[in-house]
Amino acid sequence: MAAKSIARQQLAVGIDIGGTGTKFGIVDRDGNVLFSGEISTKKHADVNSFIDELYTELSALIEKSGGVGQIKGIGVGAPNGNFYTGTIEYAPNLPWKGIIPLAKLIENKFKLPVTLTNDANAAAIGEMMYGAAKGMRDFIMITLGTGVGSGIVANGQLIYGHDGFAGELGHTIIIPDGRLHPGTGKRGSLESYASATGVRYTALELLETTDEPSLLRDVPKDDLDSKKVYEAAIQGDALARHVYEFTGRILGLALANAVMFSSPQAIVLFGGLTKAGDLILKPTREHMEANLIQVFQNKVKILISHLKESDAAILGASALAWEMK
Amino acid sequence: MAAKSIARQQLAVGIDIGGTGTKFGIVDRDGNVLFSGEISTKKHADVNSFIDELYTELSALIEKSGGVGQIKGIGVGAPNGNFYTGTIEYAPNLPWKGIIPLAKLIENKFKLPVTLTNDANAAAIGEMMYGAAKGMRDFIMITLGTGVGSGIVANGQLIYGHDGFAGELGHTIIIPDGRLHPGTGKRGSLESYASATGVRYTALELLETTDEPSLLRDVPKDDLDSKKVYEAAIQGDALARHVYEFTGRILGLALANAVMFSSPQAIVLFGGLTKAGDLILKPTREHMEANLIQVFQNKVKILISHLKESDAAILGASALAWEMK
Repeated sequence: MAAKSIARQQLAVGIDIGGTGTKFGIVDRDGNVLFSGEISTKKHADVNSFIDELYTELSALIEKSGGVGQIKGIGVGAPNGNFYTGTIEYAPNLPWKGIIPLAKLIENKFKLPVTLTNDANAAAIGEMMYGAAKGMRDFIMITLGTGVGSGIVANGQLIYGHDGFAGELGHTIIIPDGRLHPGTGKRGSLESYASATGVRYTALELLETTDEPSLLRDVPKDDLDSKKVYEAAIQGDALARHVYEFTGRILGLALANAVMFSSPQAIVLFGGLTKAGDLILKPTREHMEANLIQVFQNKVKILISHLKESDAAILGASALAWEMK
Repeated sequence: MAAKSIARQQLAVGIDIGGTGTKFGIVDRDGNVLFSGEISTKKHADVNSFIDELYTELSALIEKSGGVGQIKGIGVGAPNGNFYTGTIEYAPNLPWKGIIPLAKLIENKFKLPVTLTNDANAAAIGEMMYGAAKGMRDFIMITLGTGVGSGIVANGQLIYGHDGFAGELGHTIIIPDGRLHPGTGKRGSLESYASATGVRYTALELLETTDEPSLLRDVPKDDLDSKKVYEAAIQGDALARHVYEFTGRILGLALANAVMFSSPQAIVLFGGLTKAGDLILKPTREHMEANLIQVFQNKVKILISHLKESDAAILGASALAWEMK
């Protein structure tokens, strides 16, 4: 009996809610994902029907893992998730509008403690516990996907800010009066350039404003996406490479500003854009260094997350549960 | 004897080192400056002769306060001061070049524990203990003087970063390829616009590039400074007012970016530029809000430090001593 009681609560549930799908898994303290699953987010116009399906699928995994007695808690990463209130607030990419008390809804259904934060913050905690930032007390996590998210760790703690919304580096203005971000109505934000959407847009711009020959000229506009730009770039397409140089110039400047703000030991990058490797990293590093004042130069590592992409989101979310009191 | 022993170590010394002068004082736990003094910094080409004069002057105040037994420690704010190492590193405005082990030098001389940090960080701690940020756990302190310094508090702690150099908002790039900062060689940094030096430069630019009539056209170039711009502006001079609008536009953008980074409850401004009051604050606030995404709008206070300017620097530095273990 004693051994069984020691083994209790050695597992956590991680849930990562995305605009398209929601991933979830059962994780042990060493960061092993024991069981995992996925449901559609977007097919549930009603959040309650979403919770119902989540409960059905996830309960089965919890049972397989030995039942709720084994589970310390549930960590949830979600776009626009607020750590302090447990709510999702005005998330443009989710089907549920307004302010959704998601942590409460999950808690009531599962009868387990729930902690929620935004997806990039969850990723930062995951990196700190299991990933590239293991052992670091000062780092910045930046997710470069469809959008740009960030999680800032200083003094070994995630920075939530007074209202739980800290870490929106994607919306900081890098080019005043620059490219319009259709979601926010602001101009020149990092996200409008250094995201999959931004890369696509930069390619379209270069195709329209230059005569440079390019493989991408044969791609119908509607089919042109960041993946096509990447494929052209690795085939040596000059225009596609310019897209990455331009993106790296802007990302590098944004990283320099972030470094001069919180002076992290490293910046951990995660997400689709990082698959372009040195195509994007080289100009990013170069322009980061070029914009730093001397005291910060040649000190900050730019690291690529090495967590398995399918696990990373679940790991990050589950890590929230270990921090519960 | 018991009463005397309770009274022991109820005082702290604050030292604020500036390029021109160094202020120091004896402070009690309520933030009252009991005794204070000042010596020249710049006349001491040798840091040891500086320490000698500081010792002579400050020892007299310590004696007046009841002797070293009353003193918990010495806090020092200095440009480019590093909290972790107690050194001043490559401070462009100080007469001592390279890396100066200032905390050690003062400690050896006074036989008291010494904590050192950069001047803006010291100011932030002072505001948190005695000033406009009293009771706040998340705020940003920005000093707008000859240069621009900043101290960032999150989760109730000052952010030092991995190397002790966090909080260099003045050097973040706001206008890519913008105005050259002669001290750093970088272009478009906040400091090159939103400082006394920047205000002067903006006025000179507007005088040269426009035909706008202005009282400032009668001022010889070498005499034109931010004070003259202020005096013209309060007399209704349109060009001088444009200088503040332009400065506020850039400062507001920088504040918006800082808010989206750490989501503070307030930004506390301190220093010469804040004396212009609404001339600078109104455009700053307006442009900060205009650049924030919705979730941050109309939440963040912009506060002016209400600490007596002559005391603030000493208070901030002395506050470091209370945090000593």
